[in-house]
Amino acid sequence: MIAEIVAIGSELLTPFRQDTNSLYLTQRLNEMGVEVAFKNIVGDSRANLASVARTAIARSHIVLFMGGLGPTEDDLTREAVADALGLRLKRNPDLVAELYKRFASRRVTMPDNNMRQADVIAGAEIIQNDNGSAPGQFIEGEQDGQPRYIFLLPGPPHELKAMWNEKCHHTLRDRLPRAYIATRELRISSLGESTVDARVAPIYTKYKNVDTTILAKPGEVSLHLKSRAATMEQAQAAVDQLAAELEDELDDAVFSTNGESLEQIVGYYLQMRSGTISVAESCTGGLLAERLTNVSGSSRYFIGGVVVYSNQMKTLLADVPPLMIEEHGAVSRQVAVALAENFREITNSTIGVGITGIAGPTGGTEDKPVGLVYIAVADELGTDVVERRFPGDRERIRWWSSQVALDMVRKKLI
Amino acid sequence: MIAEIVAIGSELLTPFRQDTNSLYLTQRLNEMGVEVAFKNIVGDSRANLASVARTAIARSHIVLFMGGLGPTEDDLTREAVADALGLRLKRNPDLVAELYKRFASRRVTMPDNNMRQADVIAGAEIIQNDNGSAPGQFIEGEQDGQPRYIFLLPGPPHELKAMWNEKCHHTLRDRLPRAYIATRELRISSLGESTVDARVAPIYTKYKNVDTTILAKPGEVSLHLKSRAATMEQAQAAVDQLAAELEDELDDAVFSTNGESLEQIVGYYLQMRSGTISVAESCTGGLLAERLTNVSGSSRYFIGGVVVYSNQMKTLLADVPPLMIEEHGAVSRQVAVALAENFREITNSTIGVGITGIAGPTGGTEDKPVGLVYIAVADELGTDVVERRFPGDRERIRWWSSQVALDMVRKKLI
Repeated sequence: MIAEIVAIGSELLTPFRQDTNSLYLTQRLNEMGVEVAFKNIVGDSRANLASVARTAIARSHIVLFMGGLGPTEDDLTREAVADALGLRLKRNPDLVAELYKRFASRRVTMPDNNMRQADVIAGAEIIQNDNGSAPGQFIEGEQDGQPRYIFLLPGPPHELKAMWNEKCHHTLRDRLPRAYIATRELRISSLGESTVDARVAPIYTKYKNVDTTILAKPGEVSLHLKSRAATMEQAQAAVDQLAAELEDELDDAVFSTNGESLEQIVGYYLQMRSGTISVAESCTGGLLAERLTNVSGSSRYFIGGVVVYSNQMKTLLADVPPLMIEEHGAVSRQVAVALAENFREITNSTIGVGITGIAGPTGGTEDKPVGLVYIAVADELGTDVVERRFPGDRERIRWWSSQVALDMVRKKLI
Repeated sequence: MIAEIVAIGSELLTPFRQDTNSLYLTQRLNEMGVEVAFKNIVGDSRANLASVARTAIARSHIVLFMGGLGPTEDDLTREAVADALGLRLKRNPDLVAELYKRFASRRVTMPDNNMRQADVIAGAEIIQNDNGSAPGQFIEGEQDGQPRYIFLLPGPPHELKAMWNEKCHHTLRDRLPRAYIATRELRISSLGESTVDARVAPIYTKYKNVDTTILAKPGEVSLHLKSRAATMEQAQAAVDQLAAELEDELDDAVFSTNGESLEQIVGYYLQMRSGTISVAESCTGGLLAERLTNVSGSSRYFIGGVVVYSNQMKTLLADVPPLMIEEHGAVSRQVAVALAENFREITNSTIGVGITGIAGPTGGTEDKPVGLVYIAVADELGTDVVERRFPGDRERIRWWSSQVALDMVRKKLI
């Protein structure tokens, strides 16, 4: 059983916009054991859309159309899918009545073109939209003895997600052979993608019943495990066993075994240890505080942060001695340590973090090039400090710095 | 002349990854006056890819394939496009020699499967890859009297961009009728999408020679203008004239007329006025400092920031009187003003910003619900303060708060 997704809208063919709905739908389909084999993006052209629809319906069992169900002349999904299926549209009187009611309740006269939202493909089931005016449609059929399940869904993400979850997911699942899929996600810091792959490939290739995908982003590698079995217990056991073996191999480089983010994990550990944290940042400019506090409930352990760009502020807000800055420079191991230790003391936190570096693109020298960053983490037992040279642009250097800082905090707390 | 983009790779059909190369290529194609009519995403299956390639080549003049040119057995773009064209692959001896040289220079024995990267579709031109081992290919042909330009490009973004810019862009442009395209982007704050559209639609619809696209994201609306003409001057004049009319209508809600971000614009104004800024944040947790300092050169005007989550920190780091917090609560107009004014004084900046609110999902009360945020901006002439109730989740409330704060700073500086 394969699925195909068609995203509709001329704005999705500009350099400014991208379909993201399909990621969500892919996840929900995968949970039922259905793989997505093709994705298409097509503009608001009836002929182009009908041609895409024809191809999709010919080759895929499940076809999801997203968007183009609104009231404007650019909304042509109903017409184009009807064209592709060789079926007619019929205006549904119940939907017309509902549309009138909807507008009346807002004391607005309904523009005529809204009636188009009541057009239903012959034989289609209407899917109510609780979050917007455009109803969805579901068509069940057959082609060459194979089933076809076709959904027309609205484009706005909150309408689409709600409609899929409440109205479509079960409809589809009830029609498919029962499949049990278990997944796990291991997230790994401080190791590169090729290193991780070299270490884990000998392990995961032994597991023929688990699909393993390796993905990398700056400062992080993730392993996505997926298993399909005749019972949920079997599927879960397979991914759990592989996850355990991978964790053994990668040891404390694995920071999360159920997909949690690094800042969430740091938060868990801090709460477990009744710890608190404060951060004094220079080149990351507040990014570390922002990441830590983006976790709901972080007010329980995040005490305070300072962003100290100038030397004067380093002294005023984080007690870094002016003489130290003069002697070693603002970007130095000593200043990173002073930021961490002194701001920890000022805020009376169990952990203090200090970051100082050169995020670029300007400000680098031969001695202290762009990308040079010192990161210090202090607790009552002492202070760890590292010197790193990160490649890439300003945003990447700042991201890497915050990532390494979070990982150092995690390792202090393990 | 229409273009079609095909992104290849099974990882692009998972919930975790998305094609982003196509946004860049779309921009470059648009610059030549070429519109993208279809995008496809397909996995590493020779049959599926050949079927997509056949359809694409049948309906589009320009087809760009991205990915699947590596050495592994999953890299099947060469084979599949050859299948679709009914052409054969030939192993190119020069490419074989180059591959051997490449591996020898790294003192590594070349695995046999790397030879596949030397397979070239009959009649194709080889495009050298200066940033990786997989060469690209270019095929020029005709179908039903219409030209066909087919490019096989590598998937990694830095390889693809470099190859397109240095090797492909001119090849294609030289074969197309000369078109001159001018673009402008106006960015607008403090107004919703429907308000903006209602005000500007009567203006832009008069300009038949300019394409106008309206896009919205939280706290911001942008207008993308694009004009095509026989000379660059004409194209530029058309977008400039429309941009000027739109600016007149929207007045100071337009914060940027060439696509700059709100934080960049605030930076420009601060430098123009020799101003400096400091920020004392509670619920935004460092996001405002992070956005301000993400602009290169911001150290010239950004003095310092504090993230003061607890009442104690508000007093310790930003001099908010404990009695004021007791009387009015930490989330109050008074505390926002005190954060802005007192931290401005502590840091001796020309502008001080204070933000306090409830980002949720917990911590709300009937009196002070989640989403309630006070934002204050102080300068030597006085302090502006607003109370806002933002909808949405934690991330959205934080984003909106930082957006409104930046816009208030901008308006103080105009």
